[in-house]
Amino acid sequence: MSENRYYTIEQMEEATASLLENGKKVGADSWQQRAKNQSPHCGFGESGTCCRICSMGPCRITPKAPRGICGCDVHGIVARNYLRFTAGGSATHSDHGREICHTLHETREGGNYTVKDPEKLKRIAAEWGIEFEGKDIYDLAHEVAEVGLLEYGKPFGTQRFTKRAPEHTQKLWEEAEIMPRAIDREVSQSLHMTHMGCSSEPEALIRHSLRAGLSDGWGGSMMGTEFSDVLFGTPKPVDTTANIGVLEKDMVNIIVHGHDPSLSEMIVFYANDPEMIALAKSYGAKGINIAGVCCTANEVAMRHGIPMAGNFLSQENVVLTGVCEAIVVDVQCIFPALGPLSKCFHTKFITTSPIAQIPDSEFYRFSAETAGENAKAIVKMAVENFQNRNNDLICIPQQKTKATVGYSVEAIKTCLDGVTNSHVDTLGSTKPLVDVVKSGVLRGAVAMVGCNNPKVRPDTAHIELMKKLIANDIIVIVSGCSAQAAAKAGLLDKAAKELCGEGLKRVCELVDIPPVLHMGSCVDISRMMILASDIAKDWGINISQVPVVGCAPEWMSEKAVSIGNYVVATGIETFLGVDPYTKGSTEVTELLQGENGIKKWVEAKFVVETDMDKLCQKMIDCIEAKRAALGI
Amino acid sequence: MSENRYYTIEQMEEATASLLENGKKVGADSWQQRAKNQSPHCGFGESGTCCRICSMGPCRITPKAPRGICGCDVHGIVARNYLRFTAGGSATHSDHGREICHTLHETREGGNYTVKDPEKLKRIAAEWGIEFEGKDIYDLAHEVAEVGLLEYGKPFGTQRFTKRAPEHTQKLWEEAEIMPRAIDREVSQSLHMTHMGCSSEPEALIRHSLRAGLSDGWGGSMMGTEFSDVLFGTPKPVDTTANIGVLEKDMVNIIVHGHDPSLSEMIVFYANDPEMIALAKSYGAKGINIAGVCCTANEVAMRHGIPMAGNFLSQENVVLTGVCEAIVVDVQCIFPALGPLSKCFHTKFITTSPIAQIPDSEFYRFSAETAGENAKAIVKMAVENFQNRNNDLICIPQQKTKATVGYSVEAIKTCLDGVTNSHVDTLGSTKPLVDVVKSGVLRGAVAMVGCNNPKVRPDTAHIELMKKLIANDIIVIVSGCSAQAAAKAGLLDKAAKELCGEGLKRVCELVDIPPVLHMGSCVDISRMMILASDIAKDWGINISQVPVVGCAPEWMSEKAVSIGNYVVATGIETFLGVDPYTKGSTEVTELLQGENGIKKWVEAKFVVETDMDKLCQKMIDCIEAKRAALGI
Repeated sequence: MSENRYYTIEQMEEATASLLENGKKVGADSWQQRAKNQSPHCGFGESGTCCRICSMGPCRITPKAPRGICGCDVHGIVARNYLRFTAGGSATHSDHGREICHTLHETREGGNYTVKDPEKLKRIAAEWGIEFEGKDIYDLAHEVAEVGLLEYGKPFGTQRFTKRAPEHTQKLWEEAEIMPRAIDREVSQSLHMTHMGCSSEPEALIRHSLRAGLSDGWGGSMMGTEFSDVLFGTPKPVDTTANIGVLEKDMVNIIVHGHDPSLSEMIVFYANDPEMIALAKSYGAKGINIAGVCCTANEVAMRHGIPMAGNFLSQENVVLTGVCEAIVVDVQCIFPALGPLSKCFHTKFITTSPIAQIPDSEFYRFSAETAGENAKAIVKMAVENFQNRNNDLICIPQQKTKATVGYSVEAIKTCLDGVTNSHVDTLGSTKPLVDVVKSGVLRGAVAMVGCNNPKVRPDTAHIELMKKLIANDIIVIVSGCSAQAAAKAGLLDKAAKELCGEGLKRVCELVDIPPVLHMGSCVDISRMMILASDIAKDWGINISQVPVVGCAPEWMSEKAVSIGNYVVATGIETFLGVDPYTKGSTEVTELLQGENGIKKWVEAKFVVETDMDKLCQKMIDCIEAKRAALGI
Repeated sequence: MSENRYYTIEQMEEATASLLENGKKVGADSWQQRAKNQSPHCGFGESGTCCRICSMGPCRITPKAPRGICGCDVHGIVARNYLRFTAGGSATHSDHGREICHTLHETREGGNYTVKDPEKLKRIAAEWGIEFEGKDIYDLAHEVAEVGLLEYGKPFGTQRFTKRAPEHTQKLWEEAEIMPRAIDREVSQSLHMTHMGCSSEPEALIRHSLRAGLSDGWGGSMMGTEFSDVLFGTPKPVDTTANIGVLEKDMVNIIVHGHDPSLSEMIVFYANDPEMIALAKSYGAKGINIAGVCCTANEVAMRHGIPMAGNFLSQENVVLTGVCEAIVVDVQCIFPALGPLSKCFHTKFITTSPIAQIPDSEFYRFSAETAGENAKAIVKMAVENFQNRNNDLICIPQQKTKATVGYSVEAIKTCLDGVTNSHVDTLGSTKPLVDVVKSGVLRGAVAMVGCNNPKVRPDTAHIELMKKLIANDIIVIVSGCSAQAAAKAGLLDKAAKELCGEGLKRVCELVDIPPVLHMGSCVDISRMMILASDIAKDWGINISQVPVVGCAPEWMSEKAVSIGNYVVATGIETFLGVDPYTKGSTEVTELLQGENGIKKWVEAKFVVETDMDKLCQKMIDCIEAKRAALGI
């Protein structure tokens, strides 16, 4: 197989075109076609000015009908829709975190799930005031899991992890009345506030959006991240490969797709089972090849070096290769289209979670208690399906890149320790990073996250923005589908230092990192929050002063809006390439994007800009303005 | 003032017309006008076939675009919208219950809130396995409140109150996997399941709708009801008056509107404060008149005999009288229109809850800790506003009825004890009721609930259905806005026995009750669930066999859909006069309304029928079929 260092958008689109041609042979539908069928979109929906919250409506705001039947005006309607959008995301991310807590609660010596990072578990226990000395590690795991689970529903108090934020940030949250209480309570209250005849004051609704977002980022997502590390190991830099060419013609290909590593970890384990490999060989395959799609790809790449086949809008591509024996999914961002699409090929579409039940799939109910046997059955079924391939339908575009992934906060600090003078400075801090930013060798950082969206030419925004940023000596940290876009293009390869400005190139060489740092899946944006907090503390300034911004240029899911809310609420200016259905209200737009709304409460705001060149320039300007304000 | 026994729809509409004329003088807007402006409604929204769950869309299903961009088909979209609708209602009702739990947690001897029904508190403690002997009643209250609050977020286990249901019902719930866990978890899971790329299998989504509904009806709402009784007294029959004529020209009129009795109870208390009455007199008023609108009206009517000015679609009418000094609201079903409308008059529009913040209102933050001073300040402000009335704008339609309200389950059993032969039978049971149903003197019962909706000629469905049902010897139990429709029409007057068939009339005379029994507010539909359970147990049959049906002919809110789900899941066939945005999917319609969906899981289904004559006949037929099946 040919291995390019980098791929351009055009090359990747060519590959997709060949796959779509392959699909045409069997009448496969595609998101490209469906997106055409669904255009143009409803203008009311896109601007957020349609209300379906009660059955008196739906109501739509027009000059002739400036209020809904209940009397709600356009600002109330848009703001309510925005809060509901946020709540959907917060609930979803946090429910993922809850599952991880339950998995932690199921750990036992020699069981399906064990504690792989006991030191991290103890660190969290200490942070939460839980005694751990002399305690059996599994007793401790169960105790911490129970305390974690209560973060979802405790009647009193606020989220434990918020204490990790700088004191200044915590004070802002208290003053703005957005310090998050129990996670599920913030979700339920979001629905209550937006119920017919409750809040229609935009400020109140946007304020609660931030709170619901914080309960995700500093609550549910952070627990998802931290306890995943405890269960499966805290990520360290590991080499892997990416793009559709990671699928192997001569092997059984199993795609893991979704979010919760509880499933994918077990699939990876059983794919390495000698019994399963022997079985694969008995069917004429050379072995079993696991590859990931979407956030699951990030989870297993950064812990096992499993290759990453693609991101959100590549999920149909893996089936279209004709060599996918099974696509095994858990929750979130799974196209229902995989049902009918898999029927066009020999691919088994395996759903596993009661949360995500999808027509035309085979449902293998997966649970922590029976995870081993579930995973083995799934792997076996995939192997047995190898024989059903149609050789006339095989089409694997030969695109494959190298990537180094797994830069957890812990890993980043370890990298930085390598350039720390241990005689003078403390190890385990972000100070070397602070120093190069202060000196101007690095101008700043962009946290690039989020999905793909057909409204943006897929991956283009991610990749082009990253290229420009690193060329401008701005380091990029990535997660989620943005990370895979970078991987597919080759930007997670350490060699990509050659695409950087002189300053960033030097840093990459010295610290031995790629210029785009893979920090994990979408729940792992919580890692970025911890990193930003640690930098602010090490630097002695507020988070909002650090020359770092957030960016989701192609976001599409409610989770992304929840993320946006907590990133902004953490004091990080956030740049969106897709409007969050709010353009119909001047008041909501001002609250989110102006100088007199959330910016006054949390020292950061949203910038929505659909022109990617302008978006890039605005980020650079924002970083430079922060530098200027610091006098650096 | 003239007092009619009954009012017809036409008479009430005439009264409304005179109020709208009054409003015209000052340029008042009205829901009647806004409903016209908003017609016709969006067909996609009304049929549930529009999806706005991610920002790739919105997507709308048409023959040319049979799937959304993600590949979800119409059934998945409709079912997801339905689950979200349910979750909105469940969260809202349950958050009301949570506030009541917090109020219970704030009780103290001599405090703003005290325990008014210690026996009920002890009964619940016993039920929940909480030791109460020898315990200070306030220590017990706090302990029970904390256990109640944990029902929202406990990591393990199911809702405590579900144990009240017959064993058969509990078994159905277990088998259908809809036994509700922590309330907020069911809400969050609803959002997670419906997030982009999670469930699109209608059966899974409808199943969780029932579960989320049950977490409301047998969880949050039931706690709301039970702890309101503990705090404010368990309702007993009490006489009151109803309809717009309860407003008094010569008095300070304060309208309480919303849902949570924590506010209205305190307002009622301070309206009786001699200091406040003296103040009112000093402004030339004869005193202070409190009247209720919406569910708050039910709460204070059934505990204090406070008159009921009207229901949901009457809320603008009270302001249009020109004699409303203040309309004081808490949460839910409050028209944002009250903001601009109150500005056309001297009326103060007072919002009090962070959950319901509304433009053009005065926000008096109300909390359990400071409830007394908050309420007093509000009453004082209303009294001081008496002087600002514009006498040219006074218009009080002279319509006022008598009503007996407050038939809690406990009160119904006490009434039934009056016709029990205490030598032979046990007191405190529903057996006398069972006996008259068995004998055919009563044919059965209808639980009539829910809101108004401009899609139905307001109140007509409620009132006309009730009249036909009682004429057919079917007793009607009512709550929420349906109860006030009955009250306004005169059907809660014991004299209304004369409108009944011979059987029901005899029962009304013997037991000394009206033929339409007022059971409370919308959270109090939980009372109806307990009553149905007790009847099934006393009778020795399943709930689904009891000749009782539920009906929400004019519902409009998400809460009503949550209610519908738990009523059906409890085994009671439920008749809706407004479609729950599901007609766009044959699969969802079959699941909800057919013989092979929820009916198979919980022995009951929905019937949607917008023709009220047909709806009535279908209910009667259903009751008669149940009788026939029982051989009675």
